[in-house]
Amino acid sequence: MTRARRTPGRRPGGPDTRGEILDAARESFADKGFAATSMRAVARRAGVDAALVHHYFDSKDELFIEAMAIPVDPRQIAAHILSGPREETGRRIATAFLGVWESPDGQQRMKALFRSVLSSDEVARMMREGITQMIIQPISQMLDVPDARLRVGLVATQLVGAAVVRYLVELEPVASVDVETLIDRLAPVLQQHLTG
Amino acid sequence: MTRARRTPGRRPGGPDTRGEILDAARESFADKGFAATSMRAVARRAGVDAALVHHYFDSKDELFIEAMAIPVDPRQIAAHILSGPREETGRRIATAFLGVWESPDGQQRMKALFRSVLSSDEVARMMREGITQMIIQPISQMLDVPDARLRVGLVATQLVGAAVVRYLVELEPVASVDVETLIDRLAPVLQQHLTG
Repeated sequence: MTRARRTPGRRPGGPDTRGEILDAARESFADKGFAATSMRAVARRAGVDAALVHHYFDSKDELFIEAMAIPVDPRQIAAHILSGPREETGRRIATAFLGVWESPDGQQRMKALFRSVLSSDEVARMMREGITQMIIQPISQMLDVPDARLRVGLVATQLVGAAVVRYLVELEPVASVDVETLIDRLAPVLQQHLTG
Repeated sequence: MTRARRTPGRRPGGPDTRGEILDAARESFADKGFAATSMRAVARRAGVDAALVHHYFDSKDELFIEAMAIPVDPRQIAAHILSGPREETGRRIATAFLGVWESPDGQQRMKALFRSVLSSDEVARMMREGITQMIIQPISQMLDVPDARLRVGLVATQLVGAAVVRYLVELEPVASVDVETLIDRLAPVLQQHLTG
């Protein structure tokens, strides 16, 4: 899946331009953080015109998703979670999250992402900021309860732990239980975190 | 805290004997696994008499705890969790687990342990086996429900995730919420995993 828009007549830069923009974006997210990084600053750092950054990437969010090699678009996941009946939000979250991990390609990429977050303070800081802006804030705003951000954070604890135990540590019987059973067990707990 | 029993008149070996036994134990846990490692086999590998291994370490469990630098005795934690009213088990688990992480020394050592488990497949395998034998099996046996091991494994997912998000990734607001609030939120969820 490539996100580049190949508009006829626009000059797409050299063969590595897209990679160079991603390198510059990673540097900027690391140096200045997610909030203080702009498409324009990334362009300056990569030594290209800002229009070229916009040619390859729709938004700063997309630049972040690609730079961090996040295997899914967290904005799509967030939108899916927020649609449908409120009392089944826990189930939708469990299904969407485990769905990414259950695909062989998704699992490999999520493992790599988790390992780099957990072994590097710098990567952890970048992910923390990006995930907060792209997932935790929008979902919290939709929940309209006073402690919404804490609730969404607690959902994150359950999801992260399920992934670490099942896919990274491979602790039985969580590692080999069928995914439907796991969703059945996680759904009420996630719902409790959100609305209990 | 040293676990060596310095009985007068017994020869404790050279200055590094205890460390050499721990090295041999780590090798054996890595090569043969927790179940197939015996005190006698560790003695043979370290080139010392089996009595000397028993002089320094009460049991294979203790050898494992020390070899893996686990900052608490999981058997004591398991005993504490299993005492007291059944309907407050979730709260006792949350309190005991976060209690270890909230002490500065405990936090530093748990972080190191988590990082090594999450970055090394070999360490992950050793921990998986040891934790299964020392914590998951005894607690599962006390629960007397058919899916007890899955339930205890699910408790592990919530605890591991809370620790990773709060102490390793430091995602807000979970990272800085007071520990009493966190216990209040985790207790019912852990109880749900165990008995829901």
